[in-house]
Amino acid sequence: MTFAEARALFPALERVAYLNAGTFGPLAQPVVDAVEAELQHDLLHGRVGTTWFERALELRAALRRELATLVGAQPEQVALTASTTDGCNAVLAGLDLRPEHEIVTTDSEHFGLLGPLHASGAWVVVTPPDPEAILAAVGPRTRLIAVSEVLWTTGTHLPVHELREQAAVPILVDAAQSVGAIPVDVRGLDFVAFAGQKWLCGPDATGALVVSDPERLRIGRPGYFAQLSHDPDGTFVPRPGAARFDPNWLPLSAVSGLRAALALRPDWALERAAETAARCRELLAPLVDLEPGDATLVSFRPDRDPTELVASLERDGVMVRELPGRNLVRVSVGWWTSQEDLLRLRGALESG
Amino acid sequence: MTFAEARALFPALERVAYLNAGTFGPLAQPVVDAVEAELQHDLLHGRVGTTWFERALELRAALRRELATLVGAQPEQVALTASTTDGCNAVLAGLDLRPEHEIVTTDSEHFGLLGPLHASGAWVVVTPPDPEAILAAVGPRTRLIAVSEVLWTTGTHLPVHELREQAAVPILVDAAQSVGAIPVDVRGLDFVAFAGQKWLCGPDATGALVVSDPERLRIGRPGYFAQLSHDPDGTFVPRPGAARFDPNWLPLSAVSGLRAALALRPDWALERAAETAARCRELLAPLVDLEPGDATLVSFRPDRDPTELVASLERDGVMVRELPGRNLVRVSVGWWTSQEDLLRLRGALESG
Repeated sequence: MTFAEARALFPALERVAYLNAGTFGPLAQPVVDAVEAELQHDLLHGRVGTTWFERALELRAALRRELATLVGAQPEQVALTASTTDGCNAVLAGLDLRPEHEIVTTDSEHFGLLGPLHASGAWVVVTPPDPEAILAAVGPRTRLIAVSEVLWTTGTHLPVHELREQAAVPILVDAAQSVGAIPVDVRGLDFVAFAGQKWLCGPDATGALVVSDPERLRIGRPGYFAQLSHDPDGTFVPRPGAARFDPNWLPLSAVSGLRAALALRPDWALERAAETAARCRELLAPLVDLEPGDATLVSFRPDRDPTELVASLERDGVMVRELPGRNLVRVSVGWWTSQEDLLRLRGALESG
Repeated sequence: MTFAEARALFPALERVAYLNAGTFGPLAQPVVDAVEAELQHDLLHGRVGTTWFERALELRAALRRELATLVGAQPEQVALTASTTDGCNAVLAGLDLRPEHEIVTTDSEHFGLLGPLHASGAWVVVTPPDPEAILAAVGPRTRLIAVSEVLWTTGTHLPVHELREQAAVPILVDAAQSVGAIPVDVRGLDFVAFAGQKWLCGPDATGALVVSDPERLRIGRPGYFAQLSHDPDGTFVPRPGAARFDPNWLPLSAVSGLRAALALRPDWALERAAETAARCRELLAPLVDLEPGDATLVSFRPDRDPTELVASLERDGVMVRELPGRNLVRVSVGWWTSQEDLLRLRGALESG
């Protein structure tokens, strides 16, 4: 599949310079077709019957396999969630941390990770997003390092494998801005949570949690799929593997939509995304004060009010986002991003 | 809207006797139309831009108002969830129960409630699903009564308001089999969780949690919407009202689909459902050993293997479900259920 062929799958790219996959990726026609095919089936035949349920379980298993392949996991290590937050909450709910325990995180995390950390009751130690600072903060009370692989603010790429090895403490990786954007290999990481609707261009409310050793994490927040069987007081025999952490039923439409999104990803997606992000940095460097990220998020500190700038860019059909309270504007560069998108951004910045 | 007009909105009803709304309700054409309209918009214009996000927030607020009206709540008391289980988990995560605390429940609850009860760490006291037995089990250590308003197994209707008043202990009501099926008024109840995809005939992975006093329940499992603002360690200013318990982003397609499902419910829905369920009991009484339920679930103990019976009925186009391990078959009677559906069930039972 050529770049032109791949890009033509996304109707919205014809209208705007779509540079906000860090929030929601663009949707491709085959993804929406897959969603609608499930909906039409459910409408005409009902969400009912043995065949329907058996197919649902097969599709879930297939999605689990495909997500595992994407990130170097085993299918038994993958839970199907609705969001990165879902995954973070499942991990924190299962670790049973107390106020005397510490979690080390950075000052640049998303609330989808931070909220669960805070709610866990453990003491949250905040460091600059720097490997040395993170390692220096790890002490005898540390039960978890919880950081993003790519910071949602600046696009900085943290060496999560090295952190895990050197700290010798379990790590929860918020991979919302890495999976689908840069090469991700979860091997050696304890818990990795990511989203389907951002860089994977899947339907809303899709995602996954990879748990390296599912037997060792308590099921703190069970959904129906947590159990194979249970007693009247709720004591249960857990389902094998990380499927026990599936928090909810995922609509078949979402399962099939995400599978379609994974299937259409070109072989060259990650390579091209890296090149285009580098090109974006080159184009913007003379114009704005760039943050030193090296992934597919390109953030800059504008010389005017960021809210007004983002609104002005939007009027020019250039969709980026502001990072509230940080005086930063963030550009998300995907494998589908064209040279023209970048020039449109530069032009709007020059004229705006 | 006449019965014939209302029923004609559901294409699947032309094919099968759809008697499993206790799992998934039938989908109406306007619901799928609403879902697809959102998808098409997202496909063509992207999930991006100020207008898109502002509309998303407006649609969420509208859904919250409509669900509140449905059950006698205030919009500020309604959290938007993906399932009944989501709601139960949010409550248990916030109550911070310990092993010395007790929860009183019945021996006939769904794992969507029981799983969260067990995972809470409190001692789960199991009683027969009888108001006197439930009240007798409440003691000084009881921190919560957690029961279904309508038992998913037998369809028995528990007097949850009386239980709450007489026990003077907070109550969590699993309303998965009551909201949309029988008249429900949440006033006087502390926590009420229900689903959108069953008796309300909404899209998959929709639901709500009503929290009578949102300020008094800790946010144990925060999602992005929990906060108005936060510090780098995750400490946050909660959003006003029960919206703080929204666990995840709901797809706009799901929000609009559920709104469409609520909008098409006829005024006579609950009255007709009760009449049709009573008629179902009359028709089946001579044939099978009925459970003494009085809501819209009609369960019976078959004189042959329930798995085989359910499969045989399915071959005849009659969709009901088995309740595993209980030797029960369950018939879900909705406001859309016709006399012909019931006769088809009776005929299949007589000939099967």
